[in-house]
Amino acid sequence: MNRDDLKKILSDVKDGIIEIDDAVNSLKDIPYKDLHFAKLDYHRALRVGYPEVVFTEGKDIEHLRRILIDMLNRDANILATRMSEEVFENIKDISENMIYNKIARICIINPKDVEKVGKVAVVTGGTADIKVAEEAAITLEAFGNNVERVYDVGVAGIHRLFLNLDKIRDANCIVAVAGMEGALPSVVAGLVDVPVIAVPTSVGYGANFNGLSALLTMLNSCAAGISVVNIDNGFGAGYLASMINKGFTKNGGER
Amino acid sequence: MNRDDLKKILSDVKDGIIEIDDAVNSLKDIPYKDLHFAKLDYHRALRVGYPEVVFTEGKDIEHLRRILIDMLNRDANILATRMSEEVFENIKDISENMIYNKIARICIINPKDVEKVGKVAVVTGGTADIKVAEEAAITLEAFGNNVERVYDVGVAGIHRLFLNLDKIRDANCIVAVAGMEGALPSVVAGLVDVPVIAVPTSVGYGANFNGLSALLTMLNSCAAGISVVNIDNGFGAGYLASMINKGFTKNGGER
Amino acid sequence: MNRDDLKKILSDVKDGIIEIDDAVNSLKDIPYKDLHFAKLDYHRALRVGYPEVVFTEGKDIEHLRRILIDMLNRDANILATRMSEEVFENIKDISENMIYNKIARICIINPKDVEKVGKVAVVTGGTADIKVAEEAAITLEAFGNNVERVYDVGVAGIHRLFLNLDKIRDANCIVAVAGMEGALPSVVAGLVDVPVIAVPTSVGYGANFNGLSALLTMLNSCAAGISVVNIDNGFGAGYLASMINKGFTKNGGER
Amino acid sequence: MNRDDLKKILSDVKDGIIEIDDAVNSLKDIPYKDLHFAKLDYHRALRVGYPEVVFTEGKDIEHLRRILIDMLNRDANILATRMSEEVFENIKDISENMIYNKIARICIINPKDVEKVGKVAVVTGGTADIKVAEEAAITLEAFGNNVERVYDVGVAGIHRLFLNLDKIRDANCIVAVAGMEGALPSVVAGLVDVPVIAVPTSVGYGANFNGLSALLTMLNSCAAGISVVNIDNGFGAGYLASMINKGFTKNGGER
Amino acid sequence: MNRDDLKKILSDVKDGIIEIDDAVNSLKDIPYKDLHFAKLDYHRALRVGYPEVVFTEGKDIEHLRRILIDMLNRDANILATRMSEEVFENIKDISENMIYNKIARICIINPKDVEKVGKVAVVTGGTADIKVAEEAAITLEAFGNNVERVYDVGVAGIHRLFLNLDKIRDANCIVAVAGMEGALPSVVAGLVDVPVIAVPTSVGYGANFNGLSALLTMLNSCAAGISVVNIDNGFGAGYLASMINKGFTKNGGER
Amino acid sequence: MNRDDLKKILSDVKDGIIEIDDAVNSLKDIPYKDLHFAKLDYHRALRVGYPEVVFTEGKDIEHLRRILIDMLNRDANILATRMSEEVFENIKDISENMIYNKIARICIINPKDVEKVGKVAVVTGGTADIKVAEEAAITLEAFGNNVERVYDVGVAGIHRLFLNLDKIRDANCIVAVAGMEGALPSVVAGLVDVPVIAVPTSVGYGANFNGLSALLTMLNSCAAGISVVNIDNGFGAGYLASMINKGFTKNGGER
Amino acid sequence: MNRDDLKKILSDVKDGIIEIDDAVNSLKDIPYKDLHFAKLDYHRALRVGYPEVVFTEGKDIEHLRRILIDMLNRDANILATRMSEEVFENIKDISENMIYNKIARICIINPKDVEKVGKVAVVTGGTADIKVAEEAAITLEAFGNNVERVYDVGVAGIHRLFLNLDKIRDANCIVAVAGMEGALPSVVAGLVDVPVIAVPTSVGYGANFNGLSALLTMLNSCAAGISVVNIDNGFGAGYLASMINKGFTKNGGER
Amino acid sequence: MNRDDLKKILSDVKDGIIEIDDAVNSLKDIPYKDLHFAKLDYHRALRVGYPEVVFTEGKDIEHLRRILIDMLNRDANILATRMSEEVFENIKDISENMIYNKIARICIINPKDVEKVGKVAVVTGGTADIKVAEEAAITLEAFGNNVERVYDVGVAGIHRLFLNLDKIRDANCIVAVAGMEGALPSVVAGLVDVPVIAVPTSVGYGANFNGLSALLTMLNSCAAGISVVNIDNGFGAGYLASMINKGFTKNGGER
Repeated sequence: MNRDDLKKILSDVKDGIIEIDDAVNSLKDIPYKDLHFAKLDYHRALRVGYPEVVFTEGKDIEHLRRILIDMLNRDANILATRMSEEVFENIKDISENMIYNKIARICIINPKDVEKVGKVAVVTGGTADIKVAEEAAITLEAFGNNVERVYDVGVAGIHRLFLNLDKIRDANCIVAVAGMEGALPSVVAGLVDVPVIAVPTSVGYGANFNGLSALLTMLNSCAAGISVVNIDNGFGAGYLASMINKGFTKNGGER
Repeated sequence: MNRDDLKKILSDVKDGIIEIDDAVNSLKDIPYKDLHFAKLDYHRALRVGYPEVVFTEGKDIEHLRRILIDMLNRDANILATRMSEEVFENIKDISENMIYNKIARICIINPKDVEKVGKVAVVTGGTADIKVAEEAAITLEAFGNNVERVYDVGVAGIHRLFLNLDKIRDANCIVAVAGMEGALPSVVAGLVDVPVIAVPTSVGYGANFNGLSALLTMLNSCAAGISVVNIDNGFGAGYLASMINKGFTKNGGER
Repeated sequence: MNRDDLKKILSDVKDGIIEIDDAVNSLKDIPYKDLHFAKLDYHRALRVGYPEVVFTEGKDIEHLRRILIDMLNRDANILATRMSEEVFENIKDISENMIYNKIARICIINPKDVEKVGKVAVVTGGTADIKVAEEAAITLEAFGNNVERVYDVGVAGIHRLFLNLDKIRDANCIVAVAGMEGALPSVVAGLVDVPVIAVPTSVGYGANFNGLSALLTMLNSCAAGISVVNIDNGFGAGYLASMINKGFTKNGGER
Repeated sequence: MNRDDLKKILSDVKDGIIEIDDAVNSLKDIPYKDLHFAKLDYHRALRVGYPEVVFTEGKDIEHLRRILIDMLNRDANILATRMSEEVFENIKDISENMIYNKIARICIINPKDVEKVGKVAVVTGGTADIKVAEEAAITLEAFGNNVERVYDVGVAGIHRLFLNLDKIRDANCIVAVAGMEGALPSVVAGLVDVPVIAVPTSVGYGANFNGLSALLTMLNSCAAGISVVNIDNGFGAGYLASMINKGFTKNGGER
Repeated sequence: MNRDDLKKILSDVKDGIIEIDDAVNSLKDIPYKDLHFAKLDYHRALRVGYPEVVFTEGKDIEHLRRILIDMLNRDANILATRMSEEVFENIKDISENMIYNKIARICIINPKDVEKVGKVAVVTGGTADIKVAEEAAITLEAFGNNVERVYDVGVAGIHRLFLNLDKIRDANCIVAVAGMEGALPSVVAGLVDVPVIAVPTSVGYGANFNGLSALLTMLNSCAAGISVVNIDNGFGAGYLASMINKGFTKNGGER
Repeated sequence: MNRDDLKKILSDVKDGIIEIDDAVNSLKDIPYKDLHFAKLDYHRALRVGYPEVVFTEGKDIEHLRRILIDMLNRDANILATRMSEEVFENIKDISENMIYNKIARICIINPKDVEKVGKVAVVTGGTADIKVAEEAAITLEAFGNNVERVYDVGVAGIHRLFLNLDKIRDANCIVAVAGMEGALPSVVAGLVDVPVIAVPTSVGYGANFNGLSALLTMLNSCAAGISVVNIDNGFGAGYLASMINKGFTKNGGER
Repeated sequence: MNRDDLKKILSDVKDGIIEIDDAVNSLKDIPYKDLHFAKLDYHRALRVGYPEVVFTEGKDIEHLRRILIDMLNRDANILATRMSEEVFENIKDISENMIYNKIARICIINPKDVEKVGKVAVVTGGTADIKVAEEAAITLEAFGNNVERVYDVGVAGIHRLFLNLDKIRDANCIVAVAGMEGALPSVVAGLVDVPVIAVPTSVGYGANFNGLSALLTMLNSCAAGISVVNIDNGFGAGYLASMINKGFTKNGGER
Repeated sequence: MNRDDLKKILSDVKDGIIEIDDAVNSLKDIPYKDLHFAKLDYHRALRVGYPEVVFTEGKDIEHLRRILIDMLNRDANILATRMSEEVFENIKDISENMIYNKIARICIINPKDVEKVGKVAVVTGGTADIKVAEEAAITLEAFGNNVERVYDVGVAGIHRLFLNLDKIRDANCIVAVAGMEGALPSVVAGLVDVPVIAVPTSVGYGANFNGLSALLTMLNSCAAGISVVNIDNGFGAGYLASMINKGFTKNGGER
């Protein structure tokens, strides 16, 4: 509800087009759908044609069903993240039009065609980081970005990274996913001139403390141009990378 | 055992009404029921008509049964918190008069009617926080408070909170429940003039460190009027909010 | 800006009393004074007659001066917390009407008479906790509450607490301040029927980790009716206790 | 192998009673039995008539069997701690003379009569702490100490502790077991003049961080006469309390 | 040294234009200036006309002088961050063309005119966060970006943020700086559609643990479009925001 | 105030020897001296002839003076711990009879002769641990125990420990002080049959985290017979060792 | 790809032996095999005849199969670490030539004969540490080192270590594995003159915090000649010890 | 005292060459010099001609003087580490033959000529890490190793490392020193075939938590051949690298 919306409503009140009580109610009722246990926020997504996003982990299964069904009733394109196989089995009857990706733990419901623009590179340090990387990559594709996957190029065998630099360098933004020591984003950021979104993963054991080691590594990077999202937060990295890539590409895509 | 009790006993001793040894024993035997493995404290609850509260988690199942049965023998109204479904199945034969709430993991045994006064608002940041919020809400109701539930109004879509402010503002106390970044109580406290009890939840992943992130957020709030209970401690928040609400409402309930 | 305010403005617009642009601006300009580096929020304090509160620690000294002077120009009663002696020396020329409390590190500027109601007890575990307790006590007095100070009654000599119970028990709210093991609030809450606000202090050494030990103790209290504020946050505890005490006492003060 | 042993061996060598190589070997071979994967140390236990102690958790099940059988072959009295029911089921065929305590997770194999002297009090804050307390109590009994159990006397209902003080005060040593805020040992140590061994337990949730809160509380106690063992280490507390109790009682037992 | 560079050198070798040893050496010598204790990397900055950046904290003062002088000899525009007043006094003789900003602790040496494009908003929760915000803002300006400063709009008085939303919403990127509970970036990201770079600060006390609380808050944000840099890392946020802003604005600047 | 005291007062009341109000007051007034900011607890020390103990760190200097003077007025023998040289200079005028030990940071005021019994060994890993060890040793001597000091016998040169074993083995209790890796108590406890009180020190750097490393080492010792006090808590270890030594030696001193 | 390789390629280009594009490609294609989800690095192992190492934990099972099969197609000798029994059951059909060690969780596939040189001692504190020690020992043997296993010689019964010193002292390198307090490496390093690689294990409970206690102990060792690997990282210790042992023994093996 | 020493003493006793008491004493008196507060261990150093090492930090200044003087009386070559300038000023009168290195904080007293063999490379990520690197380098030289210093080659500008690879690759061991994200050792270990000793430094700010970030990075390295010493422990790394280098080079030095 921006300044223009406010002006319009005030103007309609002044002109007698709407009543005061209606104006007050209109400010109250539009922006979300109230299911009592959840308040679904439709206005942003509907405006820009993006998919609705539902973070499924931790939600009561009955609550989740009702949220998804309400969205389907509005014919929304839904990106449901962090969905376990068990949950998918439970809700898969609500639509015939679903794609479940087991590695990324993402379920896309009622998918819509979306033109892909620009390019984001998603790189990983190891093969065990791929599950997080795919969460980012699938999110990026669902939001209309071309994705270049460059997996298993961690710093312990740095020549594998260098021999793939060309693929990485023409991206508008890079999502760098790594667990264990998490050094990949620092090295990447020293080699490119675009924003690097670092995603620490919980991959590792012992003193990795469930991803803390990689998280701290990335936060303390001495390379410039890096920022960090939560441990294993592939979706957050993909969503942000989409914003950045579209900024770079909206006026033609060239850099 | 306050100063007056002490005076009475001393007076009875002086007047020869009771013997010295009896006086000594009377100081020993009254205040609790000793089951050897547990010492049940009945005096506070019986005095004020509130339910007995039993924290069930971690207790040996046989110990728990015997505690509950002893309470039932006194016709107590029992609020048993943190009860898993498995434990409920085990003990559900001890009374015919039980209500088990699976989401809040609370079992009310031998419930009694209690007049509800005043109003406490229970708000959550997301839908996954509802299980903790319901522990608070059911506790509040069992202790005789009206409850306004306002769920899923977290700061990432802050307009949902603003559009529900009226419901929140006429409460005497607010229980604000949030996981992940846990910012909801700060925003709420900036908008109201009543005590806000902040409940961090373990909802989230990665760098939430099982609720530590939300806990630290709430402890460091720069809004005034906030205090914090343990992670996921819905009962503690509800019990405290009841105390505060009753202070506000005892002389008529208006603010 | 509540629902009624909104209705009034809309009504004025409809009746032609104010112009649309003026209405939009009125929503923008009223609530604070903009010094560019600071946005001073006067509306709440002015409405209720409470002192303005300024947290001085960390602020640039020149910024602080300008904030205080702007407040003085409005004839505000100011409670400036966390003020070091060095800062006090720097700013003490701005008014002739200042009281600086070195132990509590509070400066009251342009103090006003305020009627004191009800009663809050402020208790400490040791003598080194007094500096935090005084921050709470002075805040409470500045906001119009009677205060009972009961210091140095920690759990290692628990009879000192019991012999002062009468003073504590007739308070409407208790602020319990303790460092080291921080066990005082748990014991107090088991002995009273009013809200206990626990304030961990950084007093101690070694494995107290600058107050973490006392903080965790208080968060994990198995007594009901306790909530916790930040380490050394005497102001926050005092402010919240004032809210609670006034709820208890507004209709006559008796409990 | 103390100074006297060394002198004796040297003397025997000088007198030609034993050969040099035998002397060297005697220094090598006596003190333990080598099973290759384990080196069983029999000399201390055999000297004093105490049970052999085996910490079973984490050991390979086949290793554990062979250790226990070797001990049984020497007719040792065995105290096997941290034994899950699953492990007990696996090894229970090795002897007909076994007592398994499920709450304490202790298995006593081939028990022997031992005279009990003095007195140690074992106190707990709550009922969920009993499993750790029983590990201490059973250890104490196996090592020949009288035990007074005083359970569920935590600080949130402190009168339960005071009404049991007599039982506690005539002990030579106190084992105080508590989870959650872990404040019991501080209060106890302020009321007695004997050593208090504090045992933090992992009982609790949220910000107890698996026992860290109780551990820090106990380490930071401002009462004198307290020391602390590892979280949930009932055995360690019992063993140490036995040492202390026997020092107090060896010359008659009175204090 | 990209694929094309490599092809050119190989081509020159084939054509006999350069000798093999020269080719090998050319790969070795070009990219940096070796001062033995430091290896200054000039190639990126010289290519794009940006200032050289020197992180001064922790460097030996004599090393720092020599690094700056070498850069000046190349007529570089230098942005020296984290420079204390004491260090500035020591090195200020090396050039007549220096601007030292005491709040941001930045020294710009040999500044050059740079055209400013687009817009980045820098917002803070409080006034004590301004020192970090200014590090970001000055960096942004030095790298050619327009900056909108919106300070002291923290979540405890959320209307101050809303009344400045217009200023924030037309930026291409937002740097959100906050200490204490650090909730500002979450709220901001819920209100805009551009990338939000969150900067936790060490402002606060007690359980803020020197910025850890704000850091965790920001990492766990449930709003999408946020990423985080190190505690107090204003430079890193500014540098990254510059990259993003320029991507948005390079083809005309409109969004 | 034990059971016998209570009986005596009740008996006196019954016999008319004292009035009821006097009896109530006698329960209130005896146990401590109230200085308002401090409540000095004299009853335990006076009963057993031990020195009064004052922990000076963190106390307001004026408070400290008044506490010490009140004690001197009762002719108490005072052990003031954690006293910096600066504090000592400030208070040294209150008595002519003071001994200040700079290394242990202990001030003994008005010392009294005390017979020394039994033996406690105080061992350290290195020379930098001596300051904590001396706090323990001086406390032990002030409370009437013979002390054997065995310093600088850490595990990295374990032969130094073995060559001093005789001195250690005939003690009734051992205080083992160590920083850095803190392994000394484990090794000692494996070699003796008496209680070992482990004192972690903050000696070290880097990953010692101000004593955390040594603390955790000692808590996790796999040797039996060890318990742990707070980091750098020499006084606590000495006080507890005194209790244990006196139990061992009260009936003749032999083991 | 070292300097000589580069010279050779350049030389071949100059001599017209290979084309420029081929040269470029040769730099790209040799060093690894690209399976898209994994980039297998064969050049180091093939050169020196060592086994390929695969860390199996966390890898998608289908990815793992394809990696192992690709390696088998090259007739590699494979050391697959951290392989659970469940994974082994899944992949055991890919070769007839496999040895699975359940304790060490290592699978050796297609083993080759390798001459063993020098000697590395692998010592453990307890029997529960053997699983990590065996990971180190089997790795050492697979890479061609003689191994001396000395298990269960922890510091709580230090004579067991001393009586095995001869076995340890003639090794070229020692791998010291310990959980709980983790003090073994310090004691060992004080007794030998060769490098000691310390491996903390997660063995223990409570305040061991999953190996943190042993890790910190080892990092803070005051003995010289120690370095530390990750918690439970038997492979890393074995691999490094192999490097060191081979340096000592390459010219004859004597020390 | 090894097996042969023991045999010799026993043999001498048997042959009547030495008396029993003398034999016992000889085992007690040889290995160290007892200054009471310190037990100086001379036997290892004197045997191999290495310098005595004294860690000066935390030692009482008078203790330190007496230790150094005792060593000088034996004409020892002394390497005194962690010596502040203030301490150096205090003790510099004890010898005329001293070299104090302010950056490394090392004082070499009574230096002796030592032949240097083999080669160790010491690399750093940045210039602020040089102080730790120099502690390692000077230690290495004092113990007779050639040192190659390669400073400021951190991963954010990785080409600087590659262009110095030749210098690094012919070392027998590499000491890799890095603060902030601490990624350098992982990259180095992936490029060489020799042991890499990783030294985390406390260089950085914010979420580096005084070196914790770099420490965790290095412990979690996915490269093989790395081990880690304490934060800022340049001496420990240098001492260990010397052991390894001498193993490689003792029989001619070639690899």
